[in-house]
Amino acid sequence: MTYCIAMKLDAGLVLLADTRTNAGIDNISTFRKMFTWSVPGERAVALLTSGNLAITQAVVSQLQERIDYPQDGVPTLLTVETMFEVVQLVADTMRDVQSRYGPALAAMNENALASIVVAGQRMGGVPRLFLVYAAGNFIEATDDTPYFQIGETKYGKPILDQVMSLDLSVQEGVTLGLLSMASTMRSNLSVGMPIDVAVVSRDRFAFDQIRRIEADDQAFWDLSNAWSAKLKASFEDLRSMIV
Amino acid sequence: MTYCIAMKLDAGLVLLADTRTNAGIDNISTFRKMFTWSVPGERAVALLTSGNLAITQAVVSQLQERIDYPQDGVPTLLTVETMFEVVQLVADTMRDVQSRYGPALAAMNENALASIVVAGQRMGGVPRLFLVYAAGNFIEATDDTPYFQIGETKYGKPILDQVMSLDLSVQEGVTLGLLSMASTMRSNLSVGMPIDVAVVSRDRFAFDQIRRIEADDQAFWDLSNAWSAKLKASFEDLRSMIV
Repeated sequence: MTYCIAMKLDAGLVLLADTRTNAGIDNISTFRKMFTWSVPGERAVALLTSGNLAITQAVVSQLQERIDYPQDGVPTLLTVETMFEVVQLVADTMRDVQSRYGPALAAMNENALASIVVAGQRMGGVPRLFLVYAAGNFIEATDDTPYFQIGETKYGKPILDQVMSLDLSVQEGVTLGLLSMASTMRSNLSVGMPIDVAVVSRDRFAFDQIRRIEADDQAFWDLSNAWSAKLKASFEDLRSMIV
Repeated sequence: MTYCIAMKLDAGLVLLADTRTNAGIDNISTFRKMFTWSVPGERAVALLTSGNLAITQAVVSQLQERIDYPQDGVPTLLTVETMFEVVQLVADTMRDVQSRYGPALAAMNENALASIVVAGQRMGGVPRLFLVYAAGNFIEATDDTPYFQIGETKYGKPILDQVMSLDLSVQEGVTLGLLSMASTMRSNLSVGMPIDVAVVSRDRFAFDQIRRIEADDQAFWDLSNAWSAKLKASFEDLRSMIV
């Protein structure tokens, strides 16, 4: 399984991804699901991936190959002019990969489903956040719904719905994302540490943070435990409310 | 969809069920999913149902028919001697119903899945809580896992995992269940008001409460709003914790 969160705050983009994969409950591995590219001061682009790992790795690898072995007239994540062109490039690559592997997977009754969050900002544009589906179609986050989740989305959604607002700082967004991640990890063992975190503050055109929170990170567990204590105390305060 | 919660606390059994059903998003109805039987002072038995509505209604109707038209040697929910025999009766009825309708549903690619929570206490026994699956097999709640959820279980699980403990009073259990229900209704429109609530305090062998919380119940919304405010305040207190 997977759990990734991407928020588009007024202050910028906040991205979190777990790293656990499983092919059956007896085949657990750690794979990166967050991928970042930047030309500092000019653009910062991140992908978060969920679903069939071979499909999403193929998409990311094709995008990387284009960058590593540039050809005249072939656009890359680092050369296209807008975030809209970035997401179109990712979506077209998704469609290519699906058309190559989809029929063989379908013939074996294997699931080719995958989804990819595309987030970033390019100089001259605003921070943008997209969600690309397996068919290569995509939607964009708006102020009405300023976040996307992919993978195991349900356990971590109530806290986002209750607490999230556009005026959080990016650091507060990271804290909120980590609490949503902690709720999810508690209920679904196939979502797990370490957690990758990336932040793109507005109009920096670069990543402020790209880092990994390891399973033994004391500050993370302090936060998770503090939240648990707050929930218990909140219920203590309300337990006498009779409905 | 459906959301039902059943808790086995030291103080007794707490049961909640929503009442919304949907056959497609454009076909929403209200159906009772909580069913109760009692011989006050001798036994109290409740069922909570989820899944294919024709299947669960057939199970409940057959159980009721046995009571309404008793036959010599045919056990009913009101005559069997223990809660274990109660759950066996429900499970056997589930199997009967599945064998009658299952093949025709399968031929039409329709889903016959259903699950039923069975809860109650009979004089001479302790409060017991079971979960009956579509195949008629079942499990029993223990102190390690003293609650069952059926239907749309994920949104309302984090609060249960954080707050629930065996030593809650039954009224506190109702409050906790309503908060879990509120979290679920906020995220899944196919779970909805009114909410049916039932309580069986230990060794009363009767229902303390069987009641319905309507959509305009101000005390319910006061509780739901107070919880939202507590969550926001809790995050305010933690937002400066840097991970």
